[in-house]
Amino acid sequence: MSLLVIGSLALDTIETPFGKAERTLGGSATFISTSASYFVNPVRLVGIVGYDFPKEELEFLKSKGIDISGLEISENKKTFHWHGKYDFDLNTRDTLVTELNAFETFDPVISEKFRKSEYVCLGNLIPSLQKKIIKQIENPKLIMCDTMNFWISGAYDDLLEILKLVNLLVINDSEARELSKEYNLVTAAKRIMEMGPQILIIKKGEHGALLFKGDMIFSAPAFPLEKVFDPTGAGDTFAGGLMGWLAKTNDLSEKNLKLAVIYGSTMASLAVEKFSLDGIRNLPHAEIMSRFAEFKKLTHFEEISLV
Amino acid sequence: MSLLVIGSLALDTIETPFGKAERTLGGSATFISTSASYFVNPVRLVGIVGYDFPKEELEFLKSKGIDISGLEISENKKTFHWHGKYDFDLNTRDTLVTELNAFETFDPVISEKFRKSEYVCLGNLIPSLQKKIIKQIENPKLIMCDTMNFWISGAYDDLLEILKLVNLLVINDSEARELSKEYNLVTAAKRIMEMGPQILIIKKGEHGALLFKGDMIFSAPAFPLEKVFDPTGAGDTFAGGLMGWLAKTNDLSEKNLKLAVIYGSTMASLAVEKFSLDGIRNLPHAEIMSRFAEFKKLTHFEEISLV
Repeated sequence: MSLLVIGSLALDTIETPFGKAERTLGGSATFISTSASYFVNPVRLVGIVGYDFPKEELEFLKSKGIDISGLEISENKKTFHWHGKYDFDLNTRDTLVTELNAFETFDPVISEKFRKSEYVCLGNLIPSLQKKIIKQIENPKLIMCDTMNFWISGAYDDLLEILKLVNLLVINDSEARELSKEYNLVTAAKRIMEMGPQILIIKKGEHGALLFKGDMIFSAPAFPLEKVFDPTGAGDTFAGGLMGWLAKTNDLSEKNLKLAVIYGSTMASLAVEKFSLDGIRNLPHAEIMSRFAEFKKLTHFEEISLV
Repeated sequence: MSLLVIGSLALDTIETPFGKAERTLGGSATFISTSASYFVNPVRLVGIVGYDFPKEELEFLKSKGIDISGLEISENKKTFHWHGKYDFDLNTRDTLVTELNAFETFDPVISEKFRKSEYVCLGNLIPSLQKKIIKQIENPKLIMCDTMNFWISGAYDDLLEILKLVNLLVINDSEARELSKEYNLVTAAKRIMEMGPQILIIKKGEHGALLFKGDMIFSAPAFPLEKVFDPTGAGDTFAGGLMGWLAKTNDLSEKNLKLAVIYGSTMASLAVEKFSLDGIRNLPHAEIMSRFAEFKKLTHFEEISLV
């Protein structure tokens, strides 16, 4: 099946306790589409960059089998730039600079070909824009969207409209609590699914992710890593692996949704081991399958027969 | 195999957002031995209570197949009393009252019969006392101990001595970080296992538990519950299920250690659904096995064959 990814492309400056990367490839759509490209081809990318976006990064995206015909290149504006600095524990970060640049005018018209995509992955965007995009899709099989605290507090009504239009919402635990006004995550999940999405994934950072569909709950751990270099893009890499797997298999059974969560977790665990996108730029298939197998060892247990 | 449990017995007053229970049965040894009693019989209990300890609670412990011949009853002191109040999210609690009473003089001489126990479970106690107890055990197959931040900061050297004598340490994530002086839990686990214990379990509260042995890591989630009434004793109930299962099966293979962690998690999830010990006072076997089966559904995934 075809997978359409819409979101930001950025040039990030990232500081972690382990080093600094300047103007490195970032943005939600970048991580989502690169991660998804290991599962499904082509990934259709819709986004906007500035005149300063490196040509070799365009070539990189194409080399991953990503169709960048929906990527607008602004002639007079720079690329979206984010500069963040992580705390020693990598769990909190400060945003030092946000320059929207070309991204401020992002208002895409989806091409006729892209409108027919079956699987659609909406990165974190202002809900009114997410709505305009969804309206252009012709006959989607699954629409996934992300959001953030900023829109929950600042554009709540628009967000509620979006939730009625999407099938799968992927958010983190603090966002789930704020959106539902419930502290308990099981209760929060029920409230959120009443708002629209039939499937909900709550990401818990280093504690993994919870998948909810109807009464079914599935818990996936984050892979216990000794060296986490840079958590930037981990959530989007998760979403990319998840949606890439779903688009590849075109199977929305509970059994396959669980697998998709594990593939998402697999990709995210590989991403955070290196700076920015480096962890998933050139991954051998065997490395993905080996990490996937380790997830099984990490979580599965077998009953023993008692004498 | 025989399981020896040494720790505190208390009469707790507990306040949660959902209600208040006064002078209800508490203490580490109470939760550990009650939880373990569902797996192995008899559980041998060593502890101390005061003259005010209710006779019907002694009968209750006996009814669970717990051998209370090692339980000292003080004639002139009251039972250890703890009064705690939980925050709305149940993740933080304030201690309002701690009266050690009879527990202050706890310095047990283990009986000849009990000294021969194969499995030993040491609840949270001052490390110097844990050491005196361990020295009395004759030929243990596995010694598990718990500790707390208070001893890590206040009795570090004594604690290091204990760690050389125990096989299995069960602590929570903040304790693991403080003990190892490492933030990353995988690194923390390596440092702690270098201090002595061959097996380490790090409890993460609502995020489950991690089991470490050599290079093996196993991740068990906490059961996602909509109604958590009272987290008091959850960690000790976990330890009781874990050690009860190990003593029952007498199998320290990695495969069986994983199962033991799931049985511990199963018991803890049942405990927190009611006040104090009420969740595990009278559990039908079928209820334990049903929750155990739900853990499997919660964490296991199956590969699908692609067409």
